[in-house]
Amino acid sequence: MRKRIRVVQYGVGPIGASIVRLLRQKASVDIVGAIDRDPAKAGRDLGELSGATDAPWGVAVSARAPGVLAEPVDVVIHSTSSSLPGVMEELLGCISAGACVISTCEELSYPFRKHPELAARLDAAAREEGVALVGTGVNPGFVMDKLVLVLSAASQRVDSAKAVRIVNASERRLPLQKKIGAGMAPEEFRRRVAAGAIKHHGLPESVAMVADGLGITLDDISETIEPVIAREVVKTPFLEVTAGHVAGVHQIARGTAGGRDRVVLELQMYVGAKQPSDTIELHGEPNVSLSIPGGTHGDVATAAIAVNAIPVIVAAPAGLRTVRDLPLAFFPPGPMA
Amino acid sequence: MRKRIRVVQYGVGPIGASIVRLLRQKASVDIVGAIDRDPAKAGRDLGELSGATDAPWGVAVSARAPGVLAEPVDVVIHSTSSSLPGVMEELLGCISAGACVISTCEELSYPFRKHPELAARLDAAAREEGVALVGTGVNPGFVMDKLVLVLSAASQRVDSAKAVRIVNASERRLPLQKKIGAGMAPEEFRRRVAAGAIKHHGLPESVAMVADGLGITLDDISETIEPVIAREVVKTPFLEVTAGHVAGVHQIARGTAGGRDRVVLELQMYVGAKQPSDTIELHGEPNVSLSIPGGTHGDVATAAIAVNAIPVIVAAPAGLRTVRDLPLAFFPPGPMA
Repeated sequence: MRKRIRVVQYGVGPIGASIVRLLRQKASVDIVGAIDRDPAKAGRDLGELSGATDAPWGVAVSARAPGVLAEPVDVVIHSTSSSLPGVMEELLGCISAGACVISTCEELSYPFRKHPELAARLDAAAREEGVALVGTGVNPGFVMDKLVLVLSAASQRVDSAKAVRIVNASERRLPLQKKIGAGMAPEEFRRRVAAGAIKHHGLPESVAMVADGLGITLDDISETIEPVIAREVVKTPFLEVTAGHVAGVHQIARGTAGGRDRVVLELQMYVGAKQPSDTIELHGEPNVSLSIPGGTHGDVATAAIAVNAIPVIVAAPAGLRTVRDLPLAFFPPGPMA
Repeated sequence: MRKRIRVVQYGVGPIGASIVRLLRQKASVDIVGAIDRDPAKAGRDLGELSGATDAPWGVAVSARAPGVLAEPVDVVIHSTSSSLPGVMEELLGCISAGACVISTCEELSYPFRKHPELAARLDAAAREEGVALVGTGVNPGFVMDKLVLVLSAASQRVDSAKAVRIVNASERRLPLQKKIGAGMAPEEFRRRVAAGAIKHHGLPESVAMVADGLGITLDDISETIEPVIAREVVKTPFLEVTAGHVAGVHQIARGTAGGRDRVVLELQMYVGAKQPSDTIELHGEPNVSLSIPGGTHGDVATAAIAVNAIPVIVAAPAGLRTVRDLPLAFFPPGPMA
C-alpha cells in the first residue's frame, strides 16, 4: 500500500461532514477534494462546511465531479443517496478515474438480488480499472450482516439467524427523526409508508448477504413497516410526540425457506426508546447470542466504518466487493508503517 | 475455488476428532487422510477413532506424514501442539506438499513477536509454494482478538481494549480440568505455574494482534497466572474440588504503553463458574461493549473456526496469514456453487 492515501469526499451532508472530520485525524490520509452537487456548497471550504474546529482546510467543495477526479485519487468516499440506480453514474465516474470507492449507498451493500445488472456493470468496470468498490455503513454493512457472519465463524451449524436493532432516535438528527415519522398521526404514517417515503433502506440487502453467507437458499424476502406508537409524551431537542402519535418505525425483513423464517432482521428506530441495543441470535450448533448494550451509534459508526474501510478497500482484489469478503477493522490514526 | 476440497487432518486428539466429525458434514470436502504420531492410532479407521456415528469411513490414520501428503491435498487442518518451535517441521512438511494449512497451534496465531524468525521462514516457504497458512481457534484466533478488531471497525478512536472470557470448565473435558489445576492445593498450583505446566497459551499473541490492529505501539506485554480458589465444594462429572482448593486459572495478559494498560485480556477458566461469558470493551469514541452470554464453547467453537476457515484460507493470498487479515465466516455444508 502507498504510504499516503489521497481521498476525495463525494457528498457533504451530515454523514459526509462526519466522515471528513474523521479523515482529518488520519495522518496517512490527504483529503484532496470534495464534491457536492448543491450549488450553495460549491466553493466553500470543506472544513468550514463540515464544522471542523481547525477550519479552514484549504480544500474547496466543488459541484463538478470530473474536475475533482481529474487529479490522482486513491479512494473516494461516497455518500449521496440510498438508491443504486440513482448513483450509478457517480460511481462509474469515480471508477473510471481510477479510484477505489467506499459508498454508504445502502443498495450497493449487496446489490446482486435487486440490481444484478448494475452490480455486474460496476464489477466489470472496477476490474477493468483495477480498483475495488464496496457499499457499507452501520446498517447495512455492519451490525445486521457483517457481525452476524463473523459470529457464525464459531458455529458448527446454523439453522437460522436473527438480529434486532433498537435505536433511540431521540439522540439523532432532526432529519432522521422526521424520516421515521416521529410526531405523525398513525394514518399519515401509513400513507407515507405506502408512498415509499418512510423506509429504512438496506434490510433486504442484509438478509440476502447473511443467507448467502450461511448457505441458505431463500424462497422469498419480505418486508413490513409498522409505526411504533408513543404511549406517553416524548420530547426530543427537536420535536414533541404526544401519546397515540407515531414515535418511529418498526421494520422487519424476513428471509424464508420452506415456509420457515431463516433470516430475520428487525429494526426499531423511534424517539424515546429506553433500552437501545443491537442483538444477534444464531440458532444451530451451538445456539449463540451476542449483544451490544446501548447499540452502535448510527451516525458515529457509519462515518467510522466508511473511513476504517480505507486500508481494506485499497488492499482488496479489483472488482465489486461486499463487507462479507472484507476483513473490516480499525484504521489507526498514525503514519503508515 | 475448486468445487471439491481435499482435506487431511493432522493430529487426532479430542479437538482433531471434533474437527473431522464436522468436516464429514461438508458436502464439498473429501477427507483424504489423517496423521497422528501415536502408534496406537496408526491403521485405525478415522471415523471409528473419532467416535463418528457413521463410522467406518474407509480412511485410515497414518503415523507417517510424508506418505499421506504424497497424494494431492488442498488443506491440512493441523492440531498437535501449542508450541510453534515444536510443530515447525510438521507445518513445513504440509507446505512443501503444496497444501494450505489451518493450525490450532496457539503460537502460530500471531507469531511475529515471540518467533519472528520462524514466522519469516513459514511465510517464505508458503509464498514459494503458493499456499497460505493461518493459526486460529476460539482463543487465540477469535473471541479475544478477531472479534475485538471487527468491533473496532465501528470506532472513530480506540484508546484501549479489554476482553474478559469466563469459561465454566465443569462442562469441559477431563484433560482440560486437570490442565487448569482443578482440585489441586494452591501451593501445588503455584509450583506447577512456576514450572510452566499450568498455562493457557496464546494470550500474548492476541494482545499483540489487537495492539497492532489498533495501531498501538506497546512498551511491554506481561502475563500473570493466579489460581481461582473454590469457596464451596464443586463437583464435575470427572472430579471434585473441596473448598480452599483450586477451581482453575485466572490468567491476565496486559499490553502497556506509557505506563498505561492499553490491551488487557483476562481469562478465567475454572470449574463451577456460574456466569460464563465473553465480553469486549473498547474505550474511545464511542465507548462500546459487546457480550456473548454463556460464552463461546471452547471445543465446539475451535473445531468450527478451524473448519469454517477452509474456504477463506483457500482464497487467501499465499503466505503466512493471521485472522486479522481474513474475513472469517461460516462454511456452508452444501455443495459449492
